[in-house]
Amino acid sequence: MTLIQEKVQQAIGILQEKQIDLWLTFVRETSAVPDPVLPLIYGATLTWTSALLLSRSGRRIAIVGRYEAETASRTGAYDEVIGYDQSIRSDLLRTLDLLAPQQIAVNTSASDPAADGLTHGMYQILSGYLEGTPHAGKLIPAEAIIAALRGRKTPAEVERVRRAVETTAEIYRRTFQYMRPGQTERELSDFMHRQMEEMNVTEAWDYDNCPAVNSGPDSPVGHAAPTDLLLQRGHLVHFDFGVRQEDYCSDIQRMVYLLRPGEKEPPAEVRKGFETVVRAIQEAARFLRPGMKGAEVDEIARGIVTAAGYPEYQYATGHQLGRSAHDGGALLGPRWERYGNSPDMLVEAGQIYTLEPGLLVPGYGYVGLEEDVLVTENGAQFLIAPQMELIII
Amino acid sequence: MTLIQEKVQQAIGILQEKQIDLWLTFVRETSAVPDPVLPLIYGATLTWTSALLLSRSGRRIAIVGRYEAETASRTGAYDEVIGYDQSIRSDLLRTLDLLAPQQIAVNTSASDPAADGLTHGMYQILSGYLEGTPHAGKLIPAEAIIAALRGRKTPAEVERVRRAVETTAEIYRRTFQYMRPGQTERELSDFMHRQMEEMNVTEAWDYDNCPAVNSGPDSPVGHAAPTDLLLQRGHLVHFDFGVRQEDYCSDIQRMVYLLRPGEKEPPAEVRKGFETVVRAIQEAARFLRPGMKGAEVDEIARGIVTAAGYPEYQYATGHQLGRSAHDGGALLGPRWERYGNSPDMLVEAGQIYTLEPGLLVPGYGYVGLEEDVLVTENGAQFLIAPQMELIII
Repeated sequence: MTLIQEKVQQAIGILQEKQIDLWLTFVRETSAVPDPVLPLIYGATLTWTSALLLSRSGRRIAIVGRYEAETASRTGAYDEVIGYDQSIRSDLLRTLDLLAPQQIAVNTSASDPAADGLTHGMYQILSGYLEGTPHAGKLIPAEAIIAALRGRKTPAEVERVRRAVETTAEIYRRTFQYMRPGQTERELSDFMHRQMEEMNVTEAWDYDNCPAVNSGPDSPVGHAAPTDLLLQRGHLVHFDFGVRQEDYCSDIQRMVYLLRPGEKEPPAEVRKGFETVVRAIQEAARFLRPGMKGAEVDEIARGIVTAAGYPEYQYATGHQLGRSAHDGGALLGPRWERYGNSPDMLVEAGQIYTLEPGLLVPGYGYVGLEEDVLVTENGAQFLIAPQMELIII
Repeated sequence: MTLIQEKVQQAIGILQEKQIDLWLTFVRETSAVPDPVLPLIYGATLTWTSALLLSRSGRRIAIVGRYEAETASRTGAYDEVIGYDQSIRSDLLRTLDLLAPQQIAVNTSASDPAADGLTHGMYQILSGYLEGTPHAGKLIPAEAIIAALRGRKTPAEVERVRRAVETTAEIYRRTFQYMRPGQTERELSDFMHRQMEEMNVTEAWDYDNCPAVNSGPDSPVGHAAPTDLLLQRGHLVHFDFGVRQEDYCSDIQRMVYLLRPGEKEPPAEVRKGFETVVRAIQEAARFLRPGMKGAEVDEIARGIVTAAGYPEYQYATGHQLGRSAHDGGALLGPRWERYGNSPDMLVEAGQIYTLEPGLLVPGYGYVGLEEDVLVTENGAQFLIAPQMELIII
């Protein structure tokens, strides 16, 4: 069974569990305007206005432009493929009449970008089609379906993420052997880009900022590209890096300290900062398990950082990982407006999260680690060994 | 000046021309849910909810998550960059109060996918923010702005498309030297993929269907992947192929006929089909000029094909080409429901269109050619020499 077929089958189980009659993915020109669910349930682009319908009763129907009907059939995930010529309207309405759903879930969400692939223009077209039919007023958000489908990784998906994570670890190993004071942030980034090419993987987010490399206290931290700043002794060097391998992503942060002449170990404030971040990750991982709310996990890590006297970090402790480095759904984050309801969504087995608290050590630089963990029925499992000691060069 | 800076400046000119006070691009997690205008006016992903505001008065303001403020500044395209922490709402409303626009154009369109990047969830969030403020009810579609901005290529953009087109022509040349009866469609596709790699370009649409290769009357034509069908003498072989080079695309169809033993030239019905398609393209190109409606150009090509006794093709005669192989905006297409108002939009100088009529020659296969042309004040200009004769092997 292909991954697509596996996920479509999983989706039907989720519709049954959530008692939703029909899930409709309504898209067009997805090479320009992709819906993030398509790689999960279709695996190709759709050019003309197209409808993928999955029903609680197990029906799997694709209505697509005639020239894409063959591709739709070849997915092996849809048992009925309807190819149309001039307008999708009549085939879509006829199919809805046959299915007679109580609700039609569509890909819209205020909180979860990964469940918000339906454009406003397409929403208006669909609403226009349904106006004056028995299906008007049936549209509901599919966010719970999509969060479950993206979040609950099948074993094959977990293995793909694991391989991406292992490749990332290998690139980090090579980088730590290569790096030394006097290089620039950009040189390190170029080196890592060459390793990606050699290992035949691509970047997990914007190429220019993947990796992010921050050396010392003057480097702009965040989603900014590496600069010509020099690595100097007495600097903390922070990396944020991930790869995409077989369509799945990793997202890992690592920390190095460059000893000053005469130093045997990093200064006390550097050690304190690093150990605080390690502790926040370990405690969050120890608590992370199915049934918790994301905000509860966030509080644990955030509380350890602030209790140690650091200002709280201005982002979530962790996000899900999968097809995208930021994979949507439940978030291990605080209840801030910009996160919508995602911090109140439940942690479930099969989800993969990052854990990535951070803090600043004045005069030395930024300390951030990021580990990737799989949620199992028995708690969180690190996908590779987490960084427990500063790498010293 | 970078391409981004050039396009942002062009956008302000378009706001003045169209007398629209403000254009607001409102996005989040664009690595998962990209808005197709971002590559034109920003050039990086945006993670947190972000607002790019361009005003008729020339203001260029980016409100982004604090961690992405540095990247926003480095675009050099925005003279004010506001980095926020917990919610964009207050910075956005304060900025709107300062600008006091009469209308706020947002990226939504029923007809033009490339102008429909605003998701329904984000539209609802924005409407919620504006409710009860003086800005409620000011939202209008930005489709005319986006169509003009994407469509009117700057000289630097035209050069990029031209280079992609030339690379495509070179890959075709190599393929025609390589191909012979007994190969499969898939072998030809593999060969072309190797040339892409060698020339360091990527596919213009789905890798599996780029190129499409159709040999003979039994091959499924459309957006389907090449099969294990054998190239045989007496087959028409049809290619549809494009590359992405420096972020800009080509999209070209080519035709080959495989002579049967004893044949000196293709059979009369094959020649008639090919010549009809050539004539339809040449006539459409001769008429294509600024100020026409797309549907008028479509009628010319379509009319030549039907007047020659073939059924009309079930797609548009031509679409725009640029950042995407299907670049949105005005369409050289019939007034069918699925095309919305795009066939009624005007042809403008600086646009690049495909011309791609097609027809079936029973017993031999599909005949489709596709040429890429630039609209100038004086009419259409082929970006490379069009195919005027069947390639004979």
